[in-house]
Amino acid sequence: MFYDRTIRLADTDAAGVIYFASLLSICHEAYEACLEKTGISLQPFLKDASCAIPIVHAEIDFQRPIYYGDQIRITVTPQFLSETEFESEYLITKISEPETFALAKTRHVCIDPQKRRRMPLPTSIMAWLDTKN
Amino acid sequence: MFYDRTIRLADTDAAGVIYFASLLSICHEAYEACLEKTGISLQPFLKDASCAIPIVHAEIDFQRPIYYGDQIRITVTPQFLSETEFESEYLITKISEPETFALAKTRHVCIDPQKRRRMPLPTSIMAWLDTKN
Amino acid sequence: MFYDRTIRLADTDAAGVIYFASLLSICHEAYEACLEKTGISLQPFLKDASCAIPIVHAEIDFQRPIYYGDQIRITVTPQFLSETEFESEYLITKISEPETFALAKTRHVCIDPQKRRRMPLPTSIMAWLDTKN
Amino acid sequence: MFYDRTIRLADTDAAGVIYFASLLSICHEAYEACLEKTGISLQPFLKDASCAIPIVHAEIDFQRPIYYGDQIRITVTPQFLSETEFESEYLITKISEPETFALAKTRHVCIDPQKRRRMPLPTSIMAWLDTKN
Repeated sequence: MFYDRTIRLADTDAAGVIYFASLLSICHEAYEACLEKTGISLQPFLKDASCAIPIVHAEIDFQRPIYYGDQIRITVTPQFLSETEFESEYLITKISEPETFALAKTRHVCIDPQKRRRMPLPTSIMAWLDTKN
Repeated sequence: MFYDRTIRLADTDAAGVIYFASLLSICHEAYEACLEKTGISLQPFLKDASCAIPIVHAEIDFQRPIYYGDQIRITVTPQFLSETEFESEYLITKISEPETFALAKTRHVCIDPQKRRRMPLPTSIMAWLDTKN
Repeated sequence: MFYDRTIRLADTDAAGVIYFASLLSICHEAYEACLEKTGISLQPFLKDASCAIPIVHAEIDFQRPIYYGDQIRITVTPQFLSETEFESEYLITKISEPETFALAKTRHVCIDPQKRRRMPLPTSIMAWLDTKN
Repeated sequence: MFYDRTIRLADTDAAGVIYFASLLSICHEAYEACLEKTGISLQPFLKDASCAIPIVHAEIDFQRPIYYGDQIRITVTPQFLSETEFESEYLITKISEPETFALAKTRHVCIDPQKRRRMPLPTSIMAWLDTKN
């Protein structure tokens, strides 16, 4: 699954490149867009839900600079880790170039938001994790 | 009431100045900080509250460029408009310079979030609107 | 010209709706996307250019709440104001609903960034302003 | 060195907590503020400088939820890695609670932005890395 995105002015900073945290934000956009393509919305997992899926870890490695107007492609690869946890990997290239520009990862756990205790991932997310492309 | 703030990298864009919408965001920070100084938190008016205070109008005029590292001062002047509505004005200067760099305004209405119907402003906000400095 | 956009988690706030300044940011995305469709990039007008096109005024009116996952359509209407100035209007609806959710406007002037003095709009922008759909 | 910060509406999302990438942004604010306390501005290292210090890696671990209005303290610990590279660690607690809420890290390299090749860190940054508190 991939998500194409043009770098907008709001994504950049005065160093003339993408602001580092904005690329993680765009990776999350890609994650949301990929869930949507398989019919899953995060809406039921937001505030006051019986089940939330917060991020417990995120990381990103930058290999080449990304500038205003660049058309990037984010390839999203979700991975099952355990009954309560999964990871999503993000390969950032340009649409027109095969080189890796950045690599990112987010790890998500399923919790009961009232008790702040882990619980099994919802079946919709489990089905998405089984999708292999 | 005023709020001092240094312009951070995240506030800027590749044009080398503050991103226009970021300054409105910083004005809202100033509004939140001023409410806090008088003991008011927006927390009770967030999601699933019996009373919400959404912004119905915002505007900003830029008079001089604001750069990375600039230390700005935002003077916040709230104004009562009606039983259900108030405005907040923002004068943006630098800490060290009297000239106006920007002027902004936000208009807020009090609503019942379930019925999406106007209701009287909460007494805490009314008290804040009475504060004249 | 229009631009379709899904509201992402990063666009929302703890009130459960779109953060007010984020919608202005998304309007600017729409402006950038519309320029691109007619072959214009803002890249030459960014830092250290001989000509910059900063925003001198922005405003937005919210008429209906916009939530996470909403698919919005932004119809962009640019308007010539003078040799050195133009405005862009934004009508925000949902893709599936004709009602107006918000209305926004940005005003841009062309300046010589070194002298901070007005200069005539570049021909590419003038051509875009002539585009009537 | 530490930096205190109140969580603002713009930092949160519709899940009712801080948006994950916003906390990395706030860590960068803390890094900028700590540099400033020792008299260093990032301004000379921004666009068109002879020396840039981009982030090549960032990571964050979330241990407890952070909500709107929370007053957090970010303790910044810079660390020399090599002549061309340093790391900055961020311990996120609340001002009023000793427990760790999150831990983050950014890794920065010094490059010649034209040649995109590594070069020694500037002396100002080297001096900051020697500061041990």
